[in-house]
Amino acid sequence: MYNVGMKDIDRLVSFIKMTFEQQGVVNAVIAVSGGIDSAVSLSLLAHALPKQNIFPVLLPYGRQNMDDAKTICVWNSIPQENWIEINIKKIVDAVCSQNKIPSYDRVRRGNIMARVRMIFVYDLAKAKNALVCGTENKSEKYLGYFTRFGDAASDIEPLSTLYKTQVRELAQELGIPQQILTKHPSAGLWNEQTDEDELGFTYEQADKVLEQLIDKKKKADSIVIEGISPETIQRVSARVQSNRFKREVPYTI
Amino acid sequence: MYNVGMKDIDRLVSFIKMTFEQQGVVNAVIAVSGGIDSAVSLSLLAHALPKQNIFPVLLPYGRQNMDDAKTICVWNSIPQENWIEINIKKIVDAVCSQNKIPSYDRVRRGNIMARVRMIFVYDLAKAKNALVCGTENKSEKYLGYFTRFGDAASDIEPLSTLYKTQVRELAQELGIPQQILTKHPSAGLWNEQTDEDELGFTYEQADKVLEQLIDKKKKADSIVIEGISPETIQRVSARVQSNRFKREVPYTI
Repeated sequence: MYNVGMKDIDRLVSFIKMTFEQQGVVNAVIAVSGGIDSAVSLSLLAHALPKQNIFPVLLPYGRQNMDDAKTICVWNSIPQENWIEINIKKIVDAVCSQNKIPSYDRVRRGNIMARVRMIFVYDLAKAKNALVCGTENKSEKYLGYFTRFGDAASDIEPLSTLYKTQVRELAQELGIPQQILTKHPSAGLWNEQTDEDELGFTYEQADKVLEQLIDKKKKADSIVIEGISPETIQRVSARVQSNRFKREVPYTI
Repeated sequence: MYNVGMKDIDRLVSFIKMTFEQQGVVNAVIAVSGGIDSAVSLSLLAHALPKQNIFPVLLPYGRQNMDDAKTICVWNSIPQENWIEINIKKIVDAVCSQNKIPSYDRVRRGNIMARVRMIFVYDLAKAKNALVCGTENKSEKYLGYFTRFGDAASDIEPLSTLYKTQVRELAQELGIPQQILTKHPSAGLWNEQTDEDELGFTYEQADKVLEQLIDKKKKADSIVIEGISPETIQRVSARVQSNRFKREVPYTI
């Protein structure tokens, strides 16, 4: 996997500029959670577009802490009158209660949270005639670690060619505040959730395996990586397999 | 445009059977509005899968009449314990009030309705381990007459190769009840809305123009069709152009 540096920032910023120009759109809407992916995506937007054309949407559930989201908006000098904060709790709880979803069914609740966020993001984009900037990275894409029509819903995806560990390098290169760089990745779908607990492996491990599986097109059985157990390699590979449908649907004749 | 007949029913039913088998999925969830597209899609599912594995979801807004939706479920002998009816009004109104969307902003409200429906459909699919059967036809697809992440969200699309007028022929071939065949197509997004009023041309007109534009790859300027004015041809073409982004996004590097 190549090391990401300044030239990648330039490349991604040019891609964003070009896409907005080609589409004749001036405004961007982006859901900002305060995680590293949204922090990097917002920062790239801030390099590519006038700050007054960027509309960060903060979508906490209940008392979810949004301090890091606010920090990265300030750090990028996004005018405060552009920030939009909407608490999704009322809507999410209403859907869960109408559908009788028990609170322990975290996957169904998590999908609903991601999709309710999508509704607010896309409504704002319609109101502002904006493109929605997604924040999905290549690791999440191949691990299927996203909600279709939820966090995966977007108009432009600047990070989709970068693994999570490369997004971290990009964040360092961009000089993103330390507390965002060092916190554990979380989809923020329930308390103390972290991606890596849920996946059962770290992104460092996953990315090394994904590079062999995806970029080098190797079979899981033939992959040997120092410091990564065969079980972990199989677990990553199984996840890529079982989530392949998410990248294939809808099936058409 | 070719005339659709019995062989197309066989072809589409085989496609549905094969897709469910290949994916190892037995259950199907489908939003049934009572319009012709969902009626035909449900009927094709009912030819392809055991009826007890089909879960029609009826998603009225407020007092929206669902009689035709119920009729087509009965007509297809879908067991009544499989029907799920959820009124989306409470959720939609809560989103609109939180976002301060005025009732006259019909496009934003319509998108929210379609996306709230998607949330319920996909949650049910998760609960039933089912594929979501979409109901989009080729006319809607190219006219961009759909809500992304709303009615366009699906796992399998049996009608996506058929123009609306061909879906009607298929409906006749299937023997679908007359009141569904003859009613005006409507996305059901507001009272007395009809697709054709909103589009400014009929599907008969649109499909003849689309066939020239899409299948025969002609330029709008070079198309001449008896009985269709040059203005209508330009209007259809303009709509295909201005909605092209819906089929292209997300933009990636």
